[in-house]
Amino acid sequence: MAPHSVLNADFRIDPHSPIPLYYQIRENLRDLIVSGRYAPGDAIPAERELSDVYNVNRLTVRRAVNELVSEGMLWRQQGVGTFVAAPKIVQTQPVLLGFTDRMLQSGHRPTSRVILQEEAPATGAVAKALRLTPNAPVVKLVRLRLADDEPIMLETSFMPQAVCPDLAAQDMVNQSLYRVLAERYGVQIVEAEEVVEPVALTDYEAELLGAQKGQPALLIEITAFTHNGRPVEFGKSLVRGDKSRYHFRIHRRVEG
Amino acid sequence: MAPHSVLNADFRIDPHSPIPLYYQIRENLRDLIVSGRYAPGDAIPAERELSDVYNVNRLTVRRAVNELVSEGMLWRQQGVGTFVAAPKIVQTQPVLLGFTDRMLQSGHRPTSRVILQEEAPATGAVAKALRLTPNAPVVKLVRLRLADDEPIMLETSFMPQAVCPDLAAQDMVNQSLYRVLAERYGVQIVEAEEVVEPVALTDYEAELLGAQKGQPALLIEITAFTHNGRPVEFGKSLVRGDKSRYHFRIHRRVEG
Repeated sequence: MAPHSVLNADFRIDPHSPIPLYYQIRENLRDLIVSGRYAPGDAIPAERELSDVYNVNRLTVRRAVNELVSEGMLWRQQGVGTFVAAPKIVQTQPVLLGFTDRMLQSGHRPTSRVILQEEAPATGAVAKALRLTPNAPVVKLVRLRLADDEPIMLETSFMPQAVCPDLAAQDMVNQSLYRVLAERYGVQIVEAEEVVEPVALTDYEAELLGAQKGQPALLIEITAFTHNGRPVEFGKSLVRGDKSRYHFRIHRRVEG
Repeated sequence: MAPHSVLNADFRIDPHSPIPLYYQIRENLRDLIVSGRYAPGDAIPAERELSDVYNVNRLTVRRAVNELVSEGMLWRQQGVGTFVAAPKIVQTQPVLLGFTDRMLQSGHRPTSRVILQEEAPATGAVAKALRLTPNAPVVKLVRLRLADDEPIMLETSFMPQAVCPDLAAQDMVNQSLYRVLAERYGVQIVEAEEVVEPVALTDYEAELLGAQKGQPALLIEITAFTHNGRPVEFGKSLVRGDKSRYHFRIHRRVEG
């Protein structure tokens, strides 16, 4: 472990700040991890040592470390130490790709578990998003998506049955939906609208995702369009917050 | 309240589905709200009535309704009923605008409370994002952002001090940071990178945002650039999940 003089340069908080000490420590430790001062697998200094360098009591240090543990940034091995966790998978937007291609691009092995695959009448919100009459037939596909065998996303997709008549009968276990739409039905998705909000996992969702109830997740509602502006997929993806982050690049729209 | 025949057409679940009944009811009720069948301020049917139309016990109905209440989609008035909440504020991306302009555009009144405004040395992650040497001077600005007097976002921004020498002394209570950067320092932000992830609010954050500890929020990390690709702001915004949603429009990137 680094000597104190080195630690002291890194571990900085302001005792006179209006921001609580534990919160400053959490931000400082997070900064040291994000900036690479501590890499995945590294041990962070022991509580006793941190309480020395920050000049705060151990309870304050523990509170900060506990939060980073519950966020999935650190993990504890009882009796051994506290370690920096593997970084989250970064999912890059706005390249319009399905889950399969996004995972392959970032070097992860995508697999799926089909939870539900059926024809059903469109409910109100689905009919509205796909511009169908209420109760028009749609194909509903619920899949658990895994990266390197770890569940990271629960995805529900609705497609108009008129667009993909026998999709409910296709093998969707390890197929990209966007590829099947393109290759079997000649439907190319070129544009999408996404609405993103943070939610807490329910029992059922947590169980499927192998996570804890109440854990934060990203709910992404997507409507995907063909080149002539026809909506062909309405979907909801629930993404584990402790396993992935979303990356967006934004340009200022020309105004006037 | 609508007669049963009307309710039955709307309130649909599949008792043979592998998806739990309470979860199907939650999704169905959410669908009825999103599609406008129930508008903000409308009462939803009583538990007893819902348990009739769904043909499930009241505990199953209550569990579904409880989840929508804790998500902020419904609210209960003791002894009166359960009502549809006001919709979340939709924040549109990728128009690159600061909070002030985004709120004005969507018809909300933006105000701010300055929590901290000071010069400080850049920590590791800040220096990295702004391409500064570690400990280079930056201006740190922590503001609580309100829409129509309700706190919805806690925003921390770091700017190189060389870019905005006396920003720490400016009145930032009701000023748009992007406007001050443009008008006082001649710095136009034209591009940004955002990384989005869901988190649970800590004590301190919840207190400032007038929310509950553990409530889901969106953590948005933004790096903003001038036209020549120079990073001039690195920021973290923590947005209450029960108050706003983010909207993105995505185009397929030309490949090859």
